[in-house]
Amino acid sequence: MDTAPVTREKRDNSLWLEEEQTDNMRLALKVTDVLHHEKTPWQDLLIVDTPEYGRTLILDGAIQLTERDEFCYSEMMAHVALCSHPDPKRVLIIGGGDGAILREVLKHPNIETCTLIDIDERVIECAKLYLPTTSCSMNDPRANVRCMDAMAFIKDTSERYDVVIVDSTDPVEFAAGLFQAPFYQDVKKILNPTGMMIELTESPFSDTALMKQAITHMRSVFPVVRMYWGVVPTYPTGMWTYGAASLSADPATPIRPVEGSTRYYNSMIHRASFILPPFLEELIVEQPHA
Amino acid sequence: MDTAPVTREKRDNSLWLEEEQTDNMRLALKVTDVLHHEKTPWQDLLIVDTPEYGRTLILDGAIQLTERDEFCYSEMMAHVALCSHPDPKRVLIIGGGDGAILREVLKHPNIETCTLIDIDERVIECAKLYLPTTSCSMNDPRANVRCMDAMAFIKDTSERYDVVIVDSTDPVEFAAGLFQAPFYQDVKKILNPTGMMIELTESPFSDTALMKQAITHMRSVFPVVRMYWGVVPTYPTGMWTYGAASLSADPATPIRPVEGSTRYYNSMIHRASFILPPFLEELIVEQPHA
Repeated sequence: MDTAPVTREKRDNSLWLEEEQTDNMRLALKVTDVLHHEKTPWQDLLIVDTPEYGRTLILDGAIQLTERDEFCYSEMMAHVALCSHPDPKRVLIIGGGDGAILREVLKHPNIETCTLIDIDERVIECAKLYLPTTSCSMNDPRANVRCMDAMAFIKDTSERYDVVIVDSTDPVEFAAGLFQAPFYQDVKKILNPTGMMIELTESPFSDTALMKQAITHMRSVFPVVRMYWGVVPTYPTGMWTYGAASLSADPATPIRPVEGSTRYYNSMIHRASFILPPFLEELIVEQPHA
Repeated sequence: MDTAPVTREKRDNSLWLEEEQTDNMRLALKVTDVLHHEKTPWQDLLIVDTPEYGRTLILDGAIQLTERDEFCYSEMMAHVALCSHPDPKRVLIIGGGDGAILREVLKHPNIETCTLIDIDERVIECAKLYLPTTSCSMNDPRANVRCMDAMAFIKDTSERYDVVIVDSTDPVEFAAGLFQAPFYQDVKKILNPTGMMIELTESPFSDTALMKQAITHMRSVFPVVRMYWGVVPTYPTGMWTYGAASLSADPATPIRPVEGSTRYYNSMIHRASFILPPFLEELIVEQPHA
């Protein structure tokens, strides 16, 4: 992408961010201010302010989060594993340089350390400058924020984790490998014996193939794989799915609450989010081996 | 609205439908064909074909349904009441001239009659011509499709119903009264003693005020009022809420399945849809009387 997807409308001179959600569908948000725009070594990074959703982070033209609705996503990425794992102490977040999932993870007093590895240092730096509500926990003494290629890190590290949360951008270019079996194998190797992995698996309406692929590859690596879902208004179609892969415990069963306030998640929503509408259940039905 | 919200893009000559979901947010769908466009006595009526969602019905610039995702809405509007009411035999649909909710209602063999009253005859006629997958049940012997002002009908009729489903357009102009206490009083008068009413109550993100107003007014009229929610990708923000008002039984408790296939609804989704995320629960918390 060569230019930011912000254009000025002729009729009233207003600015609009236009996101190509698919080849045939776009979401447009009015923009009151372009706060930051740069080409990083990795991607086009844009931060704008919008009347509908507040400050909005856009990477390579795709909305990553907005101040107003990120809680729907961040809470569901963090708390499902942290409330169902038998005793989570060490967490690894891959991606997530905005800090929103880190903030949610650190609400749990039992967490001893949370390492966040984002490939793009500029995302982290800009989040600190422009997104205080998401980057607010980066200086927590339990937080360990690093800039490097997480796929290389997990191949080499001798560290072990209880929960790995994969907060990727869309599955293209450097992020494509994050939805395939070799990556899941690498994650499995750095998990403790009761470990869990959480990863977004896109929308069943706008990215059916990726969703099915990710779940199929997870099943080829982990003994327990479940899907859950929720709403994220600024993600394509609003219906968002998540894959939960576990070495032992069932991610669908919460065994502790979140200490601290949440706006989307609670233990009843946790259980309800694993109940899939029949059309979605059908899309990921396990095929018997030939 | 003076013209259809379909415009031709200069760079590649493609047609796009652009829906103003709020003053600050738009959804745009690529259009392959404009199937029909007219000004009826009531509204601007447009039917287009889209690669993303199939055929799409737009009234006064607002997407009413698409072939690909209407099941999310139609099933949740029809089956929650029909599966929780003790013995539903007579159903009234207000609006819904496309026929999709009628189709869902008539999946229940216990239904003796389903009356559909839409103010706009042209919606019904065009649905028959262009939307065969939603209008397919209009000739069912149990269907009674009428074109008139439903608000006048329910004031005058001596008929009584077990379930009333209010499938309105957005709450502006002739539809504004459908979200207020006087209308709910009129609905209550035509309900049998165990009657239920279902009505869409918009998105908690994009129309919070209407949602809160509708639930508050329902509570002033009905002894049992519950909210449930689901996803509808082409409705603003994708997160859609529904109000369920009842004279006795709890709409949150399914007591029978749907006979016939469904793609969004089943009895587990029924129960789960009444579990509200904390932010939504808070928005509609009942205020103690002064």
